[in-house]
Amino acid sequence: MPPTTNAAPTADLAPTGPRPLRVVIAPDSFKGSATAADVARHMADGVLAAAPDAEVRLLPMADGGEGTLDALLSVWGVEAREVATVDAIGRPRRARYGVSADGRIGVVELAAASGLPAVSDVVLQPLHAHTRGTGATCAAVLDAGVEEVVLCLGGSASTDGGAGVLTGLGARLVAHSVATVASSTDGELAGTLVPDGGEGLARVVGLDLGGLHPRAREVRWRLAVDVTNPLVGERGAAAVFGPQKGASDADVAFLDAALVRWADLLERETGVRTHDLSGAGAAGGVPAALVAVLGAELEHGATLVAQAIGLPAAVADADLVLTGEGSFDSQSVHGKVADGIGALAAAAPGRPPVVMIAGQVLLPAWQARAAGITAAFSIAPGPIDVEELVGRTASRLTEVAASVTSLYLGSVRR
Amino acid sequence: MPPTTNAAPTADLAPTGPRPLRVVIAPDSFKGSATAADVARHMADGVLAAAPDAEVRLLPMADGGEGTLDALLSVWGVEAREVATVDAIGRPRRARYGVSADGRIGVVELAAASGLPAVSDVVLQPLHAHTRGTGATCAAVLDAGVEEVVLCLGGSASTDGGAGVLTGLGARLVAHSVATVASSTDGELAGTLVPDGGEGLARVVGLDLGGLHPRAREVRWRLAVDVTNPLVGERGAAAVFGPQKGASDADVAFLDAALVRWADLLERETGVRTHDLSGAGAAGGVPAALVAVLGAELEHGATLVAQAIGLPAAVADADLVLTGEGSFDSQSVHGKVADGIGALAAAAPGRPPVVMIAGQVLLPAWQARAAGITAAFSIAPGPIDVEELVGRTASRLTEVAASVTSLYLGSVRR
Repeated sequence: MPPTTNAAPTADLAPTGPRPLRVVIAPDSFKGSATAADVARHMADGVLAAAPDAEVRLLPMADGGEGTLDALLSVWGVEAREVATVDAIGRPRRARYGVSADGRIGVVELAAASGLPAVSDVVLQPLHAHTRGTGATCAAVLDAGVEEVVLCLGGSASTDGGAGVLTGLGARLVAHSVATVASSTDGELAGTLVPDGGEGLARVVGLDLGGLHPRAREVRWRLAVDVTNPLVGERGAAAVFGPQKGASDADVAFLDAALVRWADLLERETGVRTHDLSGAGAAGGVPAALVAVLGAELEHGATLVAQAIGLPAAVADADLVLTGEGSFDSQSVHGKVADGIGALAAAAPGRPPVVMIAGQVLLPAWQARAAGITAAFSIAPGPIDVEELVGRTASRLTEVAASVTSLYLGSVRR
Repeated sequence: MPPTTNAAPTADLAPTGPRPLRVVIAPDSFKGSATAADVARHMADGVLAAAPDAEVRLLPMADGGEGTLDALLSVWGVEAREVATVDAIGRPRRARYGVSADGRIGVVELAAASGLPAVSDVVLQPLHAHTRGTGATCAAVLDAGVEEVVLCLGGSASTDGGAGVLTGLGARLVAHSVATVASSTDGELAGTLVPDGGEGLARVVGLDLGGLHPRAREVRWRLAVDVTNPLVGERGAAAVFGPQKGASDADVAFLDAALVRWADLLERETGVRTHDLSGAGAAGGVPAALVAVLGAELEHGATLVAQAIGLPAAVADADLVLTGEGSFDSQSVHGKVADGIGALAAAAPGRPPVVMIAGQVLLPAWQARAAGITAAFSIAPGPIDVEELVGRTASRLTEVAASVTSLYLGSVRR
């Protein structure tokens, strides 16, 4: 049998008539070894080796957390932009963000400006860390003229209920209402400004939106979250995530009360109650302010990214879908990339098979199938240690993708 | 999406109408970790997990060498038989052999009686080791009434040109022809019997077939070989394989000359020249005697086994073929099990995809495809050491087979 790189047998293997095989390649990154874009590229090499005429769409994915900006930039084919802003404790910092090629969507990772790693050089400041730098980054995105801002929550150093994002966008928090004693002619609040950070929320009595970026309420805000915690209470932002940001038991109690006060104020001002909103506990409560004031939508991260890169339409039109991740385990099928793709494929009229190609496969095949993943293969070629496998990630992704494509073609033409 | 163990989606996945998915599972053994029959069984578990209604045929394979008897017994569903015979230096030994359920085919591994391991407890005797024990085993097979004897060559301790097999079947070798001076009334030769082993061939002048087993020339003899060496010369049985049986340079020269003399005699007696016959150098030259005297056919081991178990017909009728081996490498596609199955599938009208599931995959995907292997996957679930992988062979075979089956079904129903 001649190799399939030979023209004749390749034509013979084409699925139906002249329509080329359509393969969507939408992997997550292999953390610590390859970006999602690289993984997709290596897989594509294998697909094309087995099916030279295939129409391959590279749609590197992310779950709304780290790597989301890079995945979107890769799919959009644009470079990252940068803005001068501040970190979670107010020090100057440059933050990357992205704007889609059509200028319609802006994407910001909260961790870029307000992340915990950027302030890991100093003692943690759970009461004072804030998200104002992210607000300033978002202001730059609005300046770019986008219609939609995707804000990826996760990795925050703060518990400020999103107050910092609002102030970064031009809002002011005041410590005591002077509206009745010193309101200005245009209705703005006056008074002592509340300092940045969760501690300030305990003293906030008024919200002045007069200086808010003029486009802030014109655009659609989409918050990528991957937790379901409410804003306050024992499953809230302070109680669950405060300790990893340095909060003591006393700090947690203080911050939780401050968030309650802040949510009360937001509800008073906007009529929107966020105390118990599922997901409002993400990133120190950032959704509270953005949902109440800006009408932001909380979205499942992987789903949001999938929509931003046009994955649903691509999968619906695909004959075969390849995905991947470093470790395919029980987490993978609970709100991660693989899970989302499995659901998309199951909902697609043609129900294309979805094949997971992973660094390691820990999930039993039947559990994978239950999540819409048709088959799962490891890139390990046999007994091998981690370092060697990482070094061979590229070639093994290509090899396994070639085998998968070849098996697909060998099956479908029957 | 519900798990496919659920009845409804399974029915939905059936390939075409009411015809069940037909899967042929024909792996080689995983040397040192699982027999071919075990490998097949573990794969079948996975196939049935993904396709509960599949019609699975377990046809464990072998390449004509070690494991062939067990593979055939497993497919035939019969127990091994045993016979009291002798080892390569004449000591009493019991040897296993098999007879197919229909009584038509007998199978003998030459190594069972005349193998090198059985005489590894004593100093190697390259000049005296012989195959008479195998001849006696074959006599037992003939007694069982078979129509065909499959003799698997390989692992021999001797270089006797198959003289031992003939004597074990009742022939006599005489040291000097007395036909003209003392022939008996029925034309038998008389004279000094030549001792067993290669050394005796240097003195043989006559072959007395009067006492040959009465059925020896009625049955079809099929010799499974996996070498192409001729009987004599620098690529011959003595030169190439003698040293590993303990032959010194002088022994090799002596044995080669003895084989020439033996082949000359065989040619004189039968008109069949075996000196340069490809494969006649297997097992110390056993094919020389059996081809010349019994009309034996030299066959490619894996192909012969495939025919004996009905693999060609099974593959022709299959929707999907799974094979496997411990290490899938460049040897695999040169006359081994995988190669043969790939060729069978390529020749089958429906060209079913052939999937290799191996302990380790060392062959590039394009080389596999060129040999008719559609796809190759390792059972390694990720970074793992040899011992752990061996320990998980069963469950991983099942898992990967399930993924392969699921991908097949997901592809074929499009």
